[in-house]
Amino acid sequence: MSSGEDDLIARYFRPLATAPGALGLIDDVALLESSVDDLAVTTDAVVEGVHFLPDDPPDAVARKALRVNLSDLAAKGATPAGFVLTLALREAREAWLAPFARALGEDAADFGCPLLGGDTVSTPGPATISITAFGRVPAGRMVRRGGARAGDRIAVTGTIGDAALGLLLLKGRIAHGALDAPARDFLIGRYRVPQPRNALAAAIRDHASAAMDVSDGLAGDLAKLCAASGVSAEVDMTAVPLSEPARAALKAVSAGMETLVSGGDDYEVLCAIPENRWAAFREAARQAEVPVTTIGRITAGAEAPRFLDAAGQVVALKRLSYSHF
Amino acid sequence: MSSGEDDLIARYFRPLATAPGALGLIDDVALLESSVDDLAVTTDAVVEGVHFLPDDPPDAVARKALRVNLSDLAAKGATPAGFVLTLALREAREAWLAPFARALGEDAADFGCPLLGGDTVSTPGPATISITAFGRVPAGRMVRRGGARAGDRIAVTGTIGDAALGLLLLKGRIAHGALDAPARDFLIGRYRVPQPRNALAAAIRDHASAAMDVSDGLAGDLAKLCAASGVSAEVDMTAVPLSEPARAALKAVSAGMETLVSGGDDYEVLCAIPENRWAAFREAARQAEVPVTTIGRITAGAEAPRFLDAAGQVVALKRLSYSHF
Repeated sequence: MSSGEDDLIARYFRPLATAPGALGLIDDVALLESSVDDLAVTTDAVVEGVHFLPDDPPDAVARKALRVNLSDLAAKGATPAGFVLTLALREAREAWLAPFARALGEDAADFGCPLLGGDTVSTPGPATISITAFGRVPAGRMVRRGGARAGDRIAVTGTIGDAALGLLLLKGRIAHGALDAPARDFLIGRYRVPQPRNALAAAIRDHASAAMDVSDGLAGDLAKLCAASGVSAEVDMTAVPLSEPARAALKAVSAGMETLVSGGDDYEVLCAIPENRWAAFREAARQAEVPVTTIGRITAGAEAPRFLDAAGQVVALKRLSYSHF
Repeated sequence: MSSGEDDLIARYFRPLATAPGALGLIDDVALLESSVDDLAVTTDAVVEGVHFLPDDPPDAVARKALRVNLSDLAAKGATPAGFVLTLALREAREAWLAPFARALGEDAADFGCPLLGGDTVSTPGPATISITAFGRVPAGRMVRRGGARAGDRIAVTGTIGDAALGLLLLKGRIAHGALDAPARDFLIGRYRVPQPRNALAAAIRDHASAAMDVSDGLAGDLAKLCAASGVSAEVDMTAVPLSEPARAALKAVSAGMETLVSGGDDYEVLCAIPENRWAAFREAARQAEVPVTTIGRITAGAEAPRFLDAAGQVVALKRLSYSHF
């Protein structure tokens, strides 16, 4: 009776669809029940050969596909409520689908973001995974890009540039001997499996004047936040938080800091915090166990954000961020 | 300052993002405000070479990508509230993007379903358009697949099989001389640009015990509705509504009616209507100017739906529906 597509859904994805709104994936429409909260909606796709590599393990691909969306929700101060999945595959291979679905289910459970529905289609091209995720946020409280004001601190979570270096490693652009194995594994892991900062969502909602996730490169993303807010910014490049493996890799990479602040795939949160909120924000972040670092200040004006080196000189960045076109 | 991707979004898609929840596409997260209604969520992707042909006009591709989702909302009794778009393209070509975006904007306006957000990515493969659409429905009133009861009428909107024939024409599988030009254009148009039955949503919500849209073939989709409802069905194949061009084409197609009831892309509504609701449903459909036709009855039992020919004999269908895998 049932088709290969139905079998695939029943076998791999129905076990993940435990939320009432998924309707057991028997309907082809999911239900998000009426709520007093607003709903933040984000959609992000990952394409084989573009956002992940053909050799990347399927479990890492699943986690990345979901987590890039979870990262958006975190930056908006929203609590994950569920997601729908569109999966375009050349073929339905057990060896790929089983670990993909298992990891997706684990992440959905860990982040409290259940599978609600989806679409599975064949493609003659690269595997393409498109996820739309939903987050609930108290009415009127979603954190925008456009609220930053001159004088606000600019803060980022975690460390910047690890994923860009991980990608360079995977592409063989960093000499193998430049880093030891644990450092290589750390940076590659940061590229393959983002660590979205959903634990910080409430603190961002309570304290940030503007926020977004860093997905296309810190420099370009800060420029977007400033443009949306009608402000400028000054960043102390020596304050940009780097991991130990990134510091080690920097010595082996010609472009140096520029690679790190313009490379993509960080999936950290970039936010503006009014000075009088900083102590409370930092304390909330400490309780959430998410490292946060001040890297500069929002300034008045409309010019592009300025990145200053250790001598206080403006660094001319050739490229601000990753662009698909 | 801005990247090619940002330019593309600003140029082609920001003009479509007129709804407040789109936040002007300046944020990468959209907002669906708190509501007393439930939200129906559907996601469907169309892939070049699979759901549409490389030669299909970009405006038709845009309309199809949105309308296959609108069709799902119609069948659930939901009123369109907006959509997010993921566009994976090999390159950003003005000649393709301009008519694509223009048609998408026209349909969004015509169906009251505004663009709320999206993601634009590059792909080395075929163009892939994934849309997640939202519809509002009074709390608890979304029409499911699982509510059909023995004795209910089985009804479909419009005509069945046109799109399957249109695809056969485009693939050169129907002799060119078998149909005149208007008939060919009609059937190809039915393949390329579905006519979702959103005008019927309220009537479906008020009267149907179960409903879904016919996207993968009437036979297979009815089997799914019956399985979800724990019932069987009997369909009078002579009652299945056909367009005049389809009747003409039938004479030229070897598989005949089987092609029509198992071919995909109808995007009509299939629903079960309790007998005591039929007159009211038919009247509501008349007022909505959507043709509806009874094609059979829901029956008790768990066996596959039976399709009967003019002599009352069961027709053995080799294939029930389109499957991707």
